[in-house]
Amino acid sequence: MANQSGLEGIAVADIATSFVDGSAGELIYSGYAIEDLAENATFEEVLFLLFHSRLPNRQEYDELRATIAANSAVDATVMQMLRSLPKDTSGMSALRTAVSMLAAFDPDAENLLDKDVAARKALRLTGQIMTICAAWIRIVSGKNPVQPRGDLGVAQNFVYMMSGEEPDKTACAALDVYLVLLAEHGMNASTFAARVVTATGSDLHSAIVAGIGALKGPAHGGANSAAMSMFLEIGEVDHVAPWFEANIKSGKRRIMGIGHRVYKAPDPRAAILKRHAKALAASSGKRKWFDIADKLDQTARADAYFIQRKLYPNVDYYSAIVLYTLDLDVDMFTPLFAMARIAGWSAHVIAQMGGRLIRPKANYVGPRNQTWLPLDER
Amino acid sequence: MANQSGLEGIAVADIATSFVDGSAGELIYSGYAIEDLAENATFEEVLFLLFHSRLPNRQEYDELRATIAANSAVDATVMQMLRSLPKDTSGMSALRTAVSMLAAFDPDAENLLDKDVAARKALRLTGQIMTICAAWIRIVSGKNPVQPRGDLGVAQNFVYMMSGEEPDKTACAALDVYLVLLAEHGMNASTFAARVVTATGSDLHSAIVAGIGALKGPAHGGANSAAMSMFLEIGEVDHVAPWFEANIKSGKRRIMGIGHRVYKAPDPRAAILKRHAKALAASSGKRKWFDIADKLDQTARADAYFIQRKLYPNVDYYSAIVLYTLDLDVDMFTPLFAMARIAGWSAHVIAQMGGRLIRPKANYVGPRNQTWLPLDER
Repeated sequence: MANQSGLEGIAVADIATSFVDGSAGELIYSGYAIEDLAENATFEEVLFLLFHSRLPNRQEYDELRATIAANSAVDATVMQMLRSLPKDTSGMSALRTAVSMLAAFDPDAENLLDKDVAARKALRLTGQIMTICAAWIRIVSGKNPVQPRGDLGVAQNFVYMMSGEEPDKTACAALDVYLVLLAEHGMNASTFAARVVTATGSDLHSAIVAGIGALKGPAHGGANSAAMSMFLEIGEVDHVAPWFEANIKSGKRRIMGIGHRVYKAPDPRAAILKRHAKALAASSGKRKWFDIADKLDQTARADAYFIQRKLYPNVDYYSAIVLYTLDLDVDMFTPLFAMARIAGWSAHVIAQMGGRLIRPKANYVGPRNQTWLPLDER
Repeated sequence: MANQSGLEGIAVADIATSFVDGSAGELIYSGYAIEDLAENATFEEVLFLLFHSRLPNRQEYDELRATIAANSAVDATVMQMLRSLPKDTSGMSALRTAVSMLAAFDPDAENLLDKDVAARKALRLTGQIMTICAAWIRIVSGKNPVQPRGDLGVAQNFVYMMSGEEPDKTACAALDVYLVLLAEHGMNASTFAARVVTATGSDLHSAIVAGIGALKGPAHGGANSAAMSMFLEIGEVDHVAPWFEANIKSGKRRIMGIGHRVYKAPDPRAAILKRHAKALAASSGKRKWFDIADKLDQTARADAYFIQRKLYPNVDYYSAIVLYTLDLDVDMFTPLFAMARIAGWSAHVIAQMGGRLIRPKANYVGPRNQTWLPLDER
């Protein structure tokens, strides 16, 4: 029997969090169009929506924000571990280790059965991941981490802790939209990894750590940093055309951030991020990277190869510009993706709890009937 | 479309590491019967076999042992992290965090493409996991960790570092058999988790960390500690019959370590471990736990419910007795499982490298066509 190595088209769960219609270029979270959410919702509203399949009322919303902010401080022992890492450690390795270590300081870490407890742990982790990301940025640049504030939302608190200054409104708004857009995306590879771990009855931290590990891969969350590295390599708007000719038309390379396994129509998140990238470029005065991305996008859209194959910019493409314009180092792009995706991961993990062990099979194609020979007779 | 939540019967890969015939109760590693390997092979020979689909010759074997021993020291920064954890942290949380952190000190951590480099990283991790397990045992009991020795194999080095004394031969032999038997078992949940992570192009450490997280689950690697907790609860051989009557015949509980999703005939590993558990019980003078397990096993085998459903002791059942008689705390059972399974995980990860992204789908069953309402109007 042939193996189904990518598991394409095989449904592993019924979910209520999100639906992607790749051929129509549509994405909804629990019934709401991603365009409506990007326009109107904060990350915290989306978090509630993914957990409860409905939007929060005012009281629920205020409680959620307060709970995250109040639990987002990270134990000093974990901060000490982060400081002890070599400064060239990848942000994703640092984040993966810190999240794993946080389990040791979570009073409910080993509560494996209660979904309400898991939801509380998830909210703590949401705040803590934000704090770890901001702290790691400061640690690698030789600054002291800043403590989270109790009065700020996730996007605002992150911008505040990263800069140590009163957060800029445009930056916070762009980051909030980024977090909303990246919060959830059906049965993607990192979410599936988190579910496979959860299905053994393991704990939330183990599941999220697996999600972080999967997201780290260049074929998944690593794609936004690969896109930015490509823009940096191109370097100037004038270089787009010759770069495209030399690298893409020649068939040597692919454009990072264009094309998606699920979307065969424009990824709706890309258009929203493009608007925000453009606004941010204008307000910050740092236009160059947006202009390069835009020019390359247009070049590809005019090219028969891309047209025929329905290859469009995906969420990674313009999110790279948004994050870079927010002064984030390329190495921090995927951690920021994790900071958003903790929402979807958590919702999936809670839904998976108590479910069936996920254990596919393999076709054995190795040797058979081997006869043991002692070591010195081989 | 109904979802296939457990992915039963769906092959996700062609593999050459192991083949399980659950209905016949047969297990082979790359063509060799598990009985032959348990009788003759060391853990290091099995490690080579799983990586290369053949047994090593003398030179290859000596090199492999030397490489593992020479690379099994763990960076002092990671040891410091372990010391900083609360002493009641679960062994699996400590191990997961330490392995994640080791990536920061591995010069090849971010080499994602080269299979030879991945194999070298895997051998380092094999030695380091052994060292971490032994160190954690000493740290939680207030002792200083012992450095690994260059002249010992994995089982011997572990017993040496755990005790700080010249390792006992019977103990080393029993542990070596345990490591051989637990090294690999086809497409189990933790191996699959490691493969899902690898399929995104992520690094070996991320994949192994995901494997550890999955193994931690009570429905997977956590089963051996659950079995031991049950034996401890029973407490005396005389209590087996009334305990069985009150808990099992009444339908209230299941026997931990009896029954397996794949094996519908006796798990061949259980019979081998039973022999070693018995020998170890005799040589150590600690017979009670073996006797309880044996009596409960016999009680179940004489019971119609177990006979009809083909429920036999699985690998966890008697491995619990082996590990407990080796003076391992119940909390360390699953870390010891990981110390063995790093072999299979690594072989699978290397085979998966460069493979297709593993991304199943989900059936969306949530709300549709929701209309956005501002927060204060909900």
